[in-house]
Amino acid sequence: PLMESYRFAELVDVIATVKQNIPTDRIVHAFGLGHPMLFALAVALGCDFFDSASYALFAKAGRYMTVEGTKKIDELDYISCTCPVCVEHGIRLKKLYGEDKTRALALHNLYVCFSEIEAVKQSIRDGRLWEHVALRCRSHPEMMRALTALTKHSDWIATLDAVTKNSAIYYTGFETALRPEVVNAKKRLERIEGGMRIPLKPYGEVPPGLLEFYPFGQTLHPENTSEYTFKETALEKLRMMADYQFGKGAGALIPDNAIVKKSRNTGRMRWVYVNKEMFLTIRASDHFLLPKEGYMKLLHENFKYPRLRVVLEDDGEVLACVKEGKSVFAKFVKEVDPELKAGDECLIVDHLDNLIRGGTLHMSPKEIKDFTKGMAVRVR
Amino acid sequence: PLMESYRFAELVDVIATVKQNIPTDRIVHAFGLGHPMLFALAVALGCDFFDSASYALFAKAGRYMTVEGTKKIDELDYISCTCPVCVEHGIRLKKLYGEDKTRALALHNLYVCFSEIEAVKQSIRDGRLWEHVALRCRSHPEMMRALTALTKHSDWIATLDAVTKNSAIYYTGFETALRPEVVNAKKRLERIEGGMRIPLKPYGEVPPGLLEFYPFGQTLHPENTSEYTFKETALEKLRMMADYQFGKGAGALIPDNAIVKKSRNTGRMRWVYVNKEMFLTIRASDHFLLPKEGYMKLLHENFKYPRLRVVLEDDGEVLACVKEGKSVFAKFVKEVDPELKAGDECLIVDHLDNLIRGGTLHMSPKEIKDFTKGMAVRVR
Repeated sequence: PLMESYRFAELVDVIATVKQNIPTDRIVHAFGLGHPMLFALAVALGCDFFDSASYALFAKAGRYMTVEGTKKIDELDYISCTCPVCVEHGIRLKKLYGEDKTRALALHNLYVCFSEIEAVKQSIRDGRLWEHVALRCRSHPEMMRALTALTKHSDWIATLDAVTKNSAIYYTGFETALRPEVVNAKKRLERIEGGMRIPLKPYGEVPPGLLEFYPFGQTLHPENTSEYTFKETALEKLRMMADYQFGKGAGALIPDNAIVKKSRNTGRMRWVYVNKEMFLTIRASDHFLLPKEGYMKLLHENFKYPRLRVVLEDDGEVLACVKEGKSVFAKFVKEVDPELKAGDECLIVDHLDNLIRGGTLHMSPKEIKDFTKGMAVRVR
Repeated sequence: PLMESYRFAELVDVIATVKQNIPTDRIVHAFGLGHPMLFALAVALGCDFFDSASYALFAKAGRYMTVEGTKKIDELDYISCTCPVCVEHGIRLKKLYGEDKTRALALHNLYVCFSEIEAVKQSIRDGRLWEHVALRCRSHPEMMRALTALTKHSDWIATLDAVTKNSAIYYTGFETALRPEVVNAKKRLERIEGGMRIPLKPYGEVPPGLLEFYPFGQTLHPENTSEYTFKETALEKLRMMADYQFGKGAGALIPDNAIVKKSRNTGRMRWVYVNKEMFLTIRASDHFLLPKEGYMKLLHENFKYPRLRVVLEDDGEVLACVKEGKSVFAKFVKEVDPELKAGDECLIVDHLDNLIRGGTLHMSPKEIKDFTKGMAVRVR
């Protein structure tokens, strides 16, 4: 009834409530959710499967599905769909009778459903699911209400969201300022105290030293101008990035004698040496700092347990594997710093807090706890 | 170069400048505008034809068109398009070689282009072109800039826009408050002085008596609540509607002894009688007032030339035709009240300002002046 009566905002709240109250490793099957307009929204909320007889029921009632809503076939003047049914019949589709018409419409509706599933999958691969949802939600005011409802769950989604992505963040409207990436970025900005700030939509005020860091440097907002002449030294920028990524105090651990080397091609900071040893590298795509042994040890000494840590179970075999560089699987993790996010660099320690290696978190802390399968940390 | 370098906002300004400086009856052919992402925007600005070799040039470069932008075929993991090429090959499309690949991509690109042309046509039929543009513009930040640029031309578009439409107005984002229908409605609201107002997005403050009138009653905005108990009498509402539709003073011309009859089915005002004669009817779809002879005479007496008037050329044959009830063609119109809009009820007068009949404007005053063909006024 929520779907038939277009109460999509309530549907959002229902799915979100369910998802927040079951372990994250449970597969969610959305029974009866059969309109392609809703797939992206449901997937963004964590639905994994759909099934529905809507494609056939709609067909019987002369209803023609599109990703922007349902149309009555008899009211259409043009057919813009390119599915085999629509290419074969064109607008004469509405002149078909009885069984033929129902069958043709059902087939078209199925094509649209499967097409949207593929589009959602591609948008996930591209890291653009949020943009896809924002687009679909603009097809009806009740979908817009659903989008508003979705943004109210951003804090929860943000706890599961990755802290770095390969995709840019496109401004699409009010919802951009409320998306999980922005929620997470604003929270990390609190790690930086004082200093100069410049306005950057939709984040508010951002320290200039972070303008190239993800997500700030990857955000395309029509009201942002890219003009800013850096006054900060490379080391000042680096320390700010470290504070932002790891937490307050991480920047101060980079010693004054650190030497920052830049890429010949791009002129961007790439490598940092301390006493002729590689101290950290800077990833080109998102400017994340990838600490080497020297920096890892300093982070380990100065950030108290369990900060920055993934703690392994007390299991000699697991320990040996991780030391060799094999990935850490979720079921062998005893504890994780809850402030870490998927995509974060972390310190892998044993149950006595001995530093084993560095790694990259591939799940959120909550997922690591819930999942008994899958890779939790890729070892560096 | 504007299109290749994604300078869509400038493209909007260029087309708008051209359109504002040529007569409205000229057909505009957009040479080289070949990306389906742009069609709706260009049509909204008044382009009539497109041609471009982009579909083939893009294909040669391995570029796969979608209405949301261009993708590199080699970077896709899923194919969501249902065109015959994509259904035949699926994701194996990217494994084709040389000529085969180019040919397949070119054909796909053409399907997408023609599909979008049909979708634009349907959206025009549905009165939903603006919503269609708003959707397409959310696929890229430069398209969002273009949408902002489009809204800056709303005052101009509003002069050509119809004052009533069959379609509802859907809230899609910031641009809804700036669309031509809203511009026109806000201007007409100035015709009503004082009285109580209630907030109604995106119009600002609206007199409750107009809540069912177009576009107020046809606007779906998630922040508007529909709860309001009318305290106004039917006659008070009617006079307010008259002031809004025809201009200040039109309401006062409805006499105190007017009898308002309501529909048995809907309970809405439908007919108004004065001294047992039909004085006006109220159209159910948009609540526009359709004046009968008595009211027309009063409007004619009390609104000074050329207000509310379409003035015919001094041509006996034309006059005779119009008296019989035949439509008024643009070339026989000498003058039009510039405050009238397409969709408005008007007074058809001869060159000596004798009232001939009532009618409905089917073009904007500017179009009536520019066009030598086509129906300007449908006679009631």
